[in-house]
Amino acid sequence: MLASVEALLGWDEQTMMPPQAAAYRGMQAEAIATLAHRQRTDPAYGEHLASLAEGPLAQDGSAQVRTAIRLLRKDFEKHARVPERLVGALAKTCVEAQQAWATARASSSWTTLEPLLRQVFDLKRELACCQMPDADPYDALLDDYEPGGRWPTIEAQFARLRAEIVPLVQACAGSTRRPDDAVLRRNYPVADQQRFVRDVATRIGFDFKRGRLDTTEHPFCSGVGPHDCRITTRWDAGSLATALYGVLHEAGHGLYEQGLPTEWYGLPPGEPASLGIHESQSRLWENLVGRSRAFWEWCFPMAQAAFPQSLADVTAGSVQQALMAVHPSLIRVEADEVTYNLHVMMRFDLERAVVHGDLTVADLPEAWNERFSRDFGFRPPTDAEGVLQDIHWSAGLIGYFPTYTLGNIFAAQLMAAACRALPELDRDLAAGRFDGLLAWLRRHVHAYGRQFESAALVEQASGEPVSERWLVESLWQRYGAAHGIA
Amino acid sequence: MLASVEALLGWDEQTMMPPQAAAYRGMQAEAIATLAHRQRTDPAYGEHLASLAEGPLAQDGSAQVRTAIRLLRKDFEKHARVPERLVGALAKTCVEAQQAWATARASSSWTTLEPLLRQVFDLKRELACCQMPDADPYDALLDDYEPGGRWPTIEAQFARLRAEIVPLVQACAGSTRRPDDAVLRRNYPVADQQRFVRDVATRIGFDFKRGRLDTTEHPFCSGVGPHDCRITTRWDAGSLATALYGVLHEAGHGLYEQGLPTEWYGLPPGEPASLGIHESQSRLWENLVGRSRAFWEWCFPMAQAAFPQSLADVTAGSVQQALMAVHPSLIRVEADEVTYNLHVMMRFDLERAVVHGDLTVADLPEAWNERFSRDFGFRPPTDAEGVLQDIHWSAGLIGYFPTYTLGNIFAAQLMAAACRALPELDRDLAAGRFDGLLAWLRRHVHAYGRQFESAALVEQASGEPVSERWLVESLWQRYGAAHGIA
Repeated sequence: MLASVEALLGWDEQTMMPPQAAAYRGMQAEAIATLAHRQRTDPAYGEHLASLAEGPLAQDGSAQVRTAIRLLRKDFEKHARVPERLVGALAKTCVEAQQAWATARASSSWTTLEPLLRQVFDLKRELACCQMPDADPYDALLDDYEPGGRWPTIEAQFARLRAEIVPLVQACAGSTRRPDDAVLRRNYPVADQQRFVRDVATRIGFDFKRGRLDTTEHPFCSGVGPHDCRITTRWDAGSLATALYGVLHEAGHGLYEQGLPTEWYGLPPGEPASLGIHESQSRLWENLVGRSRAFWEWCFPMAQAAFPQSLADVTAGSVQQALMAVHPSLIRVEADEVTYNLHVMMRFDLERAVVHGDLTVADLPEAWNERFSRDFGFRPPTDAEGVLQDIHWSAGLIGYFPTYTLGNIFAAQLMAAACRALPELDRDLAAGRFDGLLAWLRRHVHAYGRQFESAALVEQASGEPVSERWLVESLWQRYGAAHGIA
Repeated sequence: MLASVEALLGWDEQTMMPPQAAAYRGMQAEAIATLAHRQRTDPAYGEHLASLAEGPLAQDGSAQVRTAIRLLRKDFEKHARVPERLVGALAKTCVEAQQAWATARASSSWTTLEPLLRQVFDLKRELACCQMPDADPYDALLDDYEPGGRWPTIEAQFARLRAEIVPLVQACAGSTRRPDDAVLRRNYPVADQQRFVRDVATRIGFDFKRGRLDTTEHPFCSGVGPHDCRITTRWDAGSLATALYGVLHEAGHGLYEQGLPTEWYGLPPGEPASLGIHESQSRLWENLVGRSRAFWEWCFPMAQAAFPQSLADVTAGSVQQALMAVHPSLIRVEADEVTYNLHVMMRFDLERAVVHGDLTVADLPEAWNERFSRDFGFRPPTDAEGVLQDIHWSAGLIGYFPTYTLGNIFAAQLMAAACRALPELDRDLAAGRFDGLLAWLRRHVHAYGRQFESAALVEQASGEPVSERWLVESLWQRYGAAHGIA
């Protein structure tokens, strides 16, 4: 309950709050977070859970009841081992570090952030040891975002993926047939975009009676209640893709939130399985549906009606091809679907090295630049466009980055399974019928909440163990074809 | 702190929340309200206040510190005497009664509401006995809205006011020279109104860096933090006055909130003195500034630029005269400045009779209709336009209505004092200079927070005891003149 109030405070802060209200909002958020921590770690609550775990429901209850008892207990034990002092220190330091990050990025000044970022990493290592004293500290942090995830497994998976993506990026760069994406950068009036993307989100199934769409510089999706899921996007009158793919991504998250069992809201059977699974839903709608030929067959007449001047001289096919351009670039959040994973992998390796003590925070900028030039072929000209570009580490989100690429891997495997189960899927998408795909996702993913860890959930839904090969296949097929590669 | 979070939940519910999120929002609000009640009535907190009250600060502290100790203790004792059961029952019953009220009003069906409204009155009587066992129960309820208010004083004041307003209403009705208000009902496009009223609110001093303006069916003002005051209005493309006077009213409340000492936010020296004082600020800007000749001299060119077609053939003077029309009417929130007080007085008398046991809830509709026809000369055709029109009683706001007319009384007395202190005021308003008046209000009203009860505050600011004569004089002068009455 208090977590949803925290979510509302956060949503309002990003979308609505007057500028001078920020300092007090920090105090409000801290007050609610402290109360929430006390509730979560109340010994009486722990005793109640222990007696439930020894009672008959833990054996004979429904799968959801058993999940609830098991995971509430796991969560309680994790949280109860964390001293309130550490919770407070982390909250305070992360607020300061995020402010320092904003200043540091604006002036590209690493030294402004370094001391606070060192504190964040130290506190997170301490948190890892408290929460899961027997686990590897990176795995202990990962567990907050990807329960049951283990870094050696992910490392191996990423290595196999990397071995396929690097040649694909090179082949795209070397191709003589490169998609022309100029059509995406014409004039698309914001008011028309607002109607258009709202219609698209409604059509794929986002329920505006249970949600909203607002404007922020960084798009996000936030669940404020079982029937209250709020997504945001940004608007750029010079771009067809920015708002549309922002909304398809966030609406994908939103469809997952709206598809979780509402009667279990706030308890594990009503919670998302992991951030990787969450990201698989956003990526599936953004990339595997939203950039497909079939989607554009349906969407193009609507887009043409919304933007008659800018789309008068093009076709559904040429817009869709424009979306297939691959450009190695500095900034993760602006990256194309192929190179995106290289951005994620390097962050995963760097943060793990710091947590494991193999790299100091002070050495991060040089390690970043070196790794980036190896992967992308050029050095970031400034730290603002390099190590300082993401807020995650300053916000204490360490162990979070790998879930982005895990999401891409899960999305491709789930989409392949959905295609096998729904032989008419391509024809349905081309006709604007998205309900079959959504029903499949609801049934095989959303309905389970946190009942299974991500690997088990994907295996059960797709009929085989998690493998990056579906993502590899999908990228080579779509981007290879668009670049004239066999 | 938690009160401000409750305020945000309420604001969001009215302005932003998706329709299906209402039920869960009720649970969120109840959870925060329960936590807030526990904090407010924690015995350890009470002991801390008691030791402060016996310590040196209670004698030698600044006026603000002494106020804080005295009033926090008063509030604690009031709240601590209320059992948690009663707090919960009231919250739950009022939610149900408000839902029943919405249904009852929509179908004009009194019996739908009656049983729940009886429960609300019973619970509020019980609350009155708990909170202030030695006081008259109506005064005990009144104390939540108008601290220190006593019903016999208000009754006498209202009787004197009534003796002057009734003849004024009759004289206006009988006059052959009645203001023509057709100009207010031309075409005023909403988008143009939005820019226009925002400019007006900014110009009178509402600080949008510390506040917002949004849209709701029923305008309100809500403080969500020391630098976060949010006002709302409604929009009607067929009316020049609806949104403008909604905003002038709510911005008046907002100027008070923004003028309270922020360093004392959440404590008595940073709280409003009473609802009557709050309403005096909204009414002063809405009616005494906003309907004045001087205001329209400044405002008219701006209005004409915003609505060139609808205001092409009129003058500042004719618009201002149109605003002086007096029409006895059924609905309080649509009433003119003169008859408004008659609506308030009858609600004050009826709710007091129920609390004192002189009238049953079941007899309210007949008592309403009888009193209304005596005061207004015709009977409400339906209960929806009569006893069911206001949400207040269903929401447990009993003892609240008189603060509306107290606000009008205080506003007139404060404005008269400001005119004496600022001899150039009329010229300033006509030139769009509102800062002198605002500074006077900040200094004589806002700066004191809850340090004085309303009567003492108004007396100190104006140099004489509270009297309704300033309101009488102001109404006769302005409305009498507009109707050609000597």
